[in-house]
Amino acid sequence: MEFDTIAAISTALGEGAIGIVRLSGDEAVAIADKIYKGAKPLSEAASHTIVYGYIMDGETRVEEAMVSIMRAPRTFTREDVVEINCHGGLVSVNKVLKLALKHGARLAEPGEFTKRAFLNGRIDLSQAEGVMDLIRAKTDKAMNVALGQVEGRLSKKIATLRQALLETVASVEVNIDYPEYDAEVVTHDLLIEKANFVEREIDKLLGTANQGKILREGLSTVIVGRPNVGKSSLLNSLVHEEKAIVTDIAGTTRDVIEEYVNVRGVPLRLVDTAGIRETEDMVERIGVERSRQVLKEAELILLVLNYGEELSSEDEALFEAVKHLNVIVIVNKTDVEQRIDLNRVRELAEGRPVVTTSLIKDEGVDELESAIASLFFEGDLESGDATYVSNSRHIALLEQAKSTIQDAKSAIDMGVPIDLVQIDITRTWELLGEIIGDSVHESLIDQLFSQFCLGK
Amino acid sequence: MEFDTIAAISTALGEGAIGIVRLSGDEAVAIADKIYKGAKPLSEAASHTIVYGYIMDGETRVEEAMVSIMRAPRTFTREDVVEINCHGGLVSVNKVLKLALKHGARLAEPGEFTKRAFLNGRIDLSQAEGVMDLIRAKTDKAMNVALGQVEGRLSKKIATLRQALLETVASVEVNIDYPEYDAEVVTHDLLIEKANFVEREIDKLLGTANQGKILREGLSTVIVGRPNVGKSSLLNSLVHEEKAIVTDIAGTTRDVIEEYVNVRGVPLRLVDTAGIRETEDMVERIGVERSRQVLKEAELILLVLNYGEELSSEDEALFEAVKHLNVIVIVNKTDVEQRIDLNRVRELAEGRPVVTTSLIKDEGVDELESAIASLFFEGDLESGDATYVSNSRHIALLEQAKSTIQDAKSAIDMGVPIDLVQIDITRTWELLGEIIGDSVHESLIDQLFSQFCLGK
Repeated sequence: MEFDTIAAISTALGEGAIGIVRLSGDEAVAIADKIYKGAKPLSEAASHTIVYGYIMDGETRVEEAMVSIMRAPRTFTREDVVEINCHGGLVSVNKVLKLALKHGARLAEPGEFTKRAFLNGRIDLSQAEGVMDLIRAKTDKAMNVALGQVEGRLSKKIATLRQALLETVASVEVNIDYPEYDAEVVTHDLLIEKANFVEREIDKLLGTANQGKILREGLSTVIVGRPNVGKSSLLNSLVHEEKAIVTDIAGTTRDVIEEYVNVRGVPLRLVDTAGIRETEDMVERIGVERSRQVLKEAELILLVLNYGEELSSEDEALFEAVKHLNVIVIVNKTDVEQRIDLNRVRELAEGRPVVTTSLIKDEGVDELESAIASLFFEGDLESGDATYVSNSRHIALLEQAKSTIQDAKSAIDMGVPIDLVQIDITRTWELLGEIIGDSVHESLIDQLFSQFCLGK
Repeated sequence: MEFDTIAAISTALGEGAIGIVRLSGDEAVAIADKIYKGAKPLSEAASHTIVYGYIMDGETRVEEAMVSIMRAPRTFTREDVVEINCHGGLVSVNKVLKLALKHGARLAEPGEFTKRAFLNGRIDLSQAEGVMDLIRAKTDKAMNVALGQVEGRLSKKIATLRQALLETVASVEVNIDYPEYDAEVVTHDLLIEKANFVEREIDKLLGTANQGKILREGLSTVIVGRPNVGKSSLLNSLVHEEKAIVTDIAGTTRDVIEEYVNVRGVPLRLVDTAGIRETEDMVERIGVERSRQVLKEAELILLVLNYGEELSSEDEALFEAVKHLNVIVIVNKTDVEQRIDLNRVRELAEGRPVVTTSLIKDEGVDELESAIASLFFEGDLESGDATYVSNSRHIALLEQAKSTIQDAKSAIDMGVPIDLVQIDITRTWELLGEIIGDSVHESLIDQLFSQFCLGK
């Protein structure tokens, strides 16, 4: 395919040592040459080499730069790609971008580089989505899942299933078109066998979805407890353990900042931590509808109690508020004399994990982390070959595919004519295809890539 | 010189399309090879080429990467440099860095790459400082100043002056050591002439210091005025004009966020803008000492009045509070009927600029920006050859050098023996040398580079 030449800043915005302006398209080298002055023009540079020079605005030097030239097709987009690698100031990187735009490049839309990699056939849609997940990964394990997707692990699984469906359809067609032909007759049993295989495999993939989604999006977590039970210590302890708080900063505003804590590879997205840090009025607000809503929407609640005090009516009210929710009960301050009735706590916990800690002495934190990890992950996550489905779009498509293959199965069982069964099987094949971007509407593609960050 | 191999993340932290881990040192290629798997080892790649492959943790793929190999001496540090260019997620870039550290690299200190460029003789100290300024530049013009410094424009000036001083010293020495020798006799007049030349040139450089410093550090600016005169509109209008608010984010905390507005190349650092946006109680607090302090410390005060209201006692109190300070008076809301006495406003302004605006209609903003720019810059800043001194360290050294060359002049005038005059001249030569890093203490060097961002 042929597209115009696009440009964007491809490094995160902020003070960095290196900032990159990336160009992609037929004119990438020609446009870069108009703003570059070095020992020789970029057009004379060999592919996959790096040259030193200056970025020029007419006769004025704007920046020192190392420029990478990568010619199609061995590039990220399969088009000619030029990366201008300059000192990482916001202003200078912006200036270089503006010059590229002035000389004929178009400002890339978010995700447009990756979109071209997709449209030019280098990667399929699930791989492209993996690229985005890789950037947004909050923990090592999330990264492994994303990388697996970039490498096409999910794509291969999907391809296998579609192949199986295709073979079934082909056999059916042979049967319909040439009933007298001595081909393998597609029997009820064979159809059922294939359909069962596909359903089983889809089920396996869906079985990873819950964990995959948590890895990808993080687990929204709320810490509750009366004042002075150690909620801030808990927060600090979790944060401290991995030291890697990942902060998402939307644009340059201060509005949306989320904190992630990495607990053994499980990214906890801490909800309302500002509230915890600044005030301790969560309990006071527990009667308020909004607070109940926050608890209900949380995927994990860490309920903190005081080992050194008897259970209060407030504590009991908290247990009531978190009934049937995912809770880990933390009885903190084992360093002081016990006053709490642990049997009663276990009773109220109704089988949900209870961990005793002395956060101030750093005791019990290991057990707490194990409890968190094992609540969502049975056994350890393999960094190896496991394929995780993590993307809501994929999960929805797999669920639809499961439903259509089940339709096919009932149709077969009911003795519905085989050319009608074929419709369900074809539909299943199409649904799976949408995961990897086969037969996907252009508007969906536009929407998907628009979620990418700029410059990717 | 020989150093160990260092590594750091060289792109700004955050979600970006590309993240770079940079290695520098003798072992850079060898260490990178331990964590890289591609078509062939990096050690076999030619210098200044880019190869594709995977970053490996043992047998596990960690990241897809494009790896740039640049061998000494044609590199930023004059050492072997490897840049691992991967998908820009925080976690993945961190993981790649950790692997590099695990296999023998040492985590670079802030500025250590640039420090090596200095220690290995590729750039001098003022050029290194220019690199930092380039990263932190808030406007195009600030960037030009920084780039001039990186290119060594200041270094060349300094070198010229030191050469002149050296020649003088040499002539003096000839005169002292061989009084009978038939060399050019260093006369009173010749010494004075050289000293005058050096003093004049230092003065010229210092003459640019004020503007240079503003460009480098921004102009701390406060907006004051009674409620409802249009302070927020003014802020929005200034911000909107250039759309480029540069936000400094220290670490990942939300504590220190400063907003810069680019007004015709002059970076305004807006003080207490949160206060302006959220409350309008600056006036109410005007009696409070802290508010007076904020005003006193501001380098520019934008005092906003209401065109549609008579001057109030509060307005007069504001004028009193900003007496003798750098003020631009903005009479806003010319879109409503005039009630304000403009003559009285001009009287209170005491010769300082008065601009009338209708911010809501976008009228008068041009005049306001001109007023701001011309308050600090006579004529337009040349993007061309002008050398600006912008760094406080340089300014202090130039001032000391000016003082010692003046000492030399008085000594000559008083007929002090010529070998004593020589001491002042030599000291001037040394002071100028410190600007470019000649005869600078190691502790100063460490301290200077520690102000750099990580990975540079």
